[in-house]
Amino acid sequence: MDGHSVTRTGRKDESMTGCIVFHYHVLSDPGDIAARAEALLLEQTVELSRAAASDDWVRDNIIGEVLSIEPRAGGGFAVAIAQALRTTALDPAQFLNVAFGNSSLQPDVKLAGVEPPDEFFKTFRGPRFGADALREKLGAHRRALTATALKPMGLPAAKLAALAHAFAVAGIDVIKDDHGLADHDFCSFEQRVELCQCAVAKANAETGGRTIYAPNLIGSPASVHRQFAFAREAGVGAVLLSPMLVGPGLLHELAGAAALPIIAHPAFGGSEWIAPEVLFGDIFKWFGADASIFPHLGGRFSYSRETCLSLAARLNSSAHGLKPAFPVPAGGIKTSRVREVLSFYGVDTILLVGGSLLESGEVIQRTRDFVAEAARVSKELAS
Amino acid sequence: MDGHSVTRTGRKDESMTGCIVFHYHVLSDPGDIAARAEALLLEQTVELSRAAASDDWVRDNIIGEVLSIEPRAGGGFAVAIAQALRTTALDPAQFLNVAFGNSSLQPDVKLAGVEPPDEFFKTFRGPRFGADALREKLGAHRRALTATALKPMGLPAAKLAALAHAFAVAGIDVIKDDHGLADHDFCSFEQRVELCQCAVAKANAETGGRTIYAPNLIGSPASVHRQFAFAREAGVGAVLLSPMLVGPGLLHELAGAAALPIIAHPAFGGSEWIAPEVLFGDIFKWFGADASIFPHLGGRFSYSRETCLSLAARLNSSAHGLKPAFPVPAGGIKTSRVREVLSFYGVDTILLVGGSLLESGEVIQRTRDFVAEAARVSKELAS
Repeated sequence: MDGHSVTRTGRKDESMTGCIVFHYHVLSDPGDIAARAEALLLEQTVELSRAAASDDWVRDNIIGEVLSIEPRAGGGFAVAIAQALRTTALDPAQFLNVAFGNSSLQPDVKLAGVEPPDEFFKTFRGPRFGADALREKLGAHRRALTATALKPMGLPAAKLAALAHAFAVAGIDVIKDDHGLADHDFCSFEQRVELCQCAVAKANAETGGRTIYAPNLIGSPASVHRQFAFAREAGVGAVLLSPMLVGPGLLHELAGAAALPIIAHPAFGGSEWIAPEVLFGDIFKWFGADASIFPHLGGRFSYSRETCLSLAARLNSSAHGLKPAFPVPAGGIKTSRVREVLSFYGVDTILLVGGSLLESGEVIQRTRDFVAEAARVSKELAS
Repeated sequence: MDGHSVTRTGRKDESMTGCIVFHYHVLSDPGDIAARAEALLLEQTVELSRAAASDDWVRDNIIGEVLSIEPRAGGGFAVAIAQALRTTALDPAQFLNVAFGNSSLQPDVKLAGVEPPDEFFKTFRGPRFGADALREKLGAHRRALTATALKPMGLPAAKLAALAHAFAVAGIDVIKDDHGLADHDFCSFEQRVELCQCAVAKANAETGGRTIYAPNLIGSPASVHRQFAFAREAGVGAVLLSPMLVGPGLLHELAGAAALPIIAHPAFGGSEWIAPEVLFGDIFKWFGADASIFPHLGGRFSYSRETCLSLAARLNSSAHGLKPAFPVPAGGIKTSRVREVLSFYGVDTILLVGGSLLESGEVIQRTRDFVAEAARVSKELAS
């Protein structure tokens, strides 16, 4: 009856093979950490003591294992826990539940990493399009892509469309809605999408460019599905989605059905609970993001150099047979920082420059300067 | 052009009147706090500097106002910010976006409170059923309700149903699935719901009781809608939902359509980013929870006495014309603590005792003891 004898190789039923390993950072006194890790293990699945979870099949097939406990340099402990993959039901919400459902409520524990087995990626297939297809669509090879945002919230659809036209004329690759543009009484989703898509198509016809427009989908799931269908019908090139606001499972659902690339936005993603490279790098990609926006260091947010590099590397990676996605560093980046940012991430990046293009009336010229600088630096980095 | 002249009474367009006030706790040097509060104000809506957000209508109708900045006893500052209600689009996801979208990514700021105007509650109507209707359904007046959980994950549906039968025979009011019970390969949602509901109905027929069963809905939005329809058809008395796992907007969507009371679970709710009384007390209630589960102090979690009391009071309240909801303190509560817990919260409470009822084979007797103790203490408190 001692559950400690259960090991990863000792499972009786291998119909859904494999374990998923979760890495946590746990604050604890050294004398308590073994018990704390055991409690964390049980909290995420059976929510019972081993004594109460006495069913043989449960003991052999559900209860996972504390793999390791290591002291961390900065204090606290790194705890690795293997859970049976089957506990996740291969469902996005239940996966997050087993990863960090109840334990997210506990201030002494952070989710620091997830290592799923191959089996996981038969369901979680990552980007439907991925970076290469996006490059193909935009006719943009061997250079960083450029992106900007329609803002501010409060402009009527016609003014946003005029702005979209200006950005497109200047040759930017991706024009996304600001993530705060919703279905407002002063600017409805449908009118905005129609006018902005029309403006971008018109500019493309004028310039021979291939700029795409990505409207922001936000609302309850039914609203988001309606918006997605409308945007697709209107001919947009991609959509923007904030998975933590609309529900991370909805990203997986849309990606499964999607005929459009999805750009994920980190809003409502929290800080210091799940490592940003795990949430915005791994998880959003696994659930289907073709590109993932995150705060570049030195902006209004506070990610470290290591976090930013790790986040981008996870998106760029083709591990697990997934298509690479684009990292989209953002947050206070200006044209004057393009060289620094591209030197940091390399050219497999979408550079998102927002507010600074709007700081004077010369939107087209400022955008042209940004696009030209991104092209110039990309060329230098490639040579 | 100085936006500081915009006040709440000075708005030009009053078609959607009112402001929604957000309270934040911000860590900052005293010399920087005014600029930090201004940045927080702009981050949540226009995401531009005032200079760049120069449109007259935007300035007068969108950009809110920093109402107050007060030093906090424990350090840092309490910052109150009014935003135009219209920025929320009266949509659950966009409301959270304006409340704490981008700023949630910043480690120096926590969401500490939300004060919506009356207009807000025409859309966010709170519990569809509420505490009184639940009491009526259960025939349980002037006493605390009792609840327990079917667990552990891993038991086949037939064993969970046998457990449900035992709990119901013992006279418990509400039997909910553990929030980790999903649509697993070893225990499908549909089979579990059919067998458990059947078992509870059978027990009720035997005892004349009115126990209800609340299955856990979890998955992407489409899965949750399918599960909801199935559960309703099967005749369950309520459902369990983890809004942060399935998407908070889905709670609002289901409550709007719901023919069933919804019990909210806090899983994936995080710690130290949004005050628990705001997320699990106010927001879940506003979005439609008829009861909201939260960790009682002294269990495996770490909420303070003040947090727990405030959380319960918000659920119990009938402010804003909303029906009262039930607080459901949980997390390591045993029968021996019923007196302490009920003395703390009063009888307008659902007591959730989980694992301890399963710690030996005598489930019916242990459950009867719990139910009897809750009735006894309720009676004493009422007299």
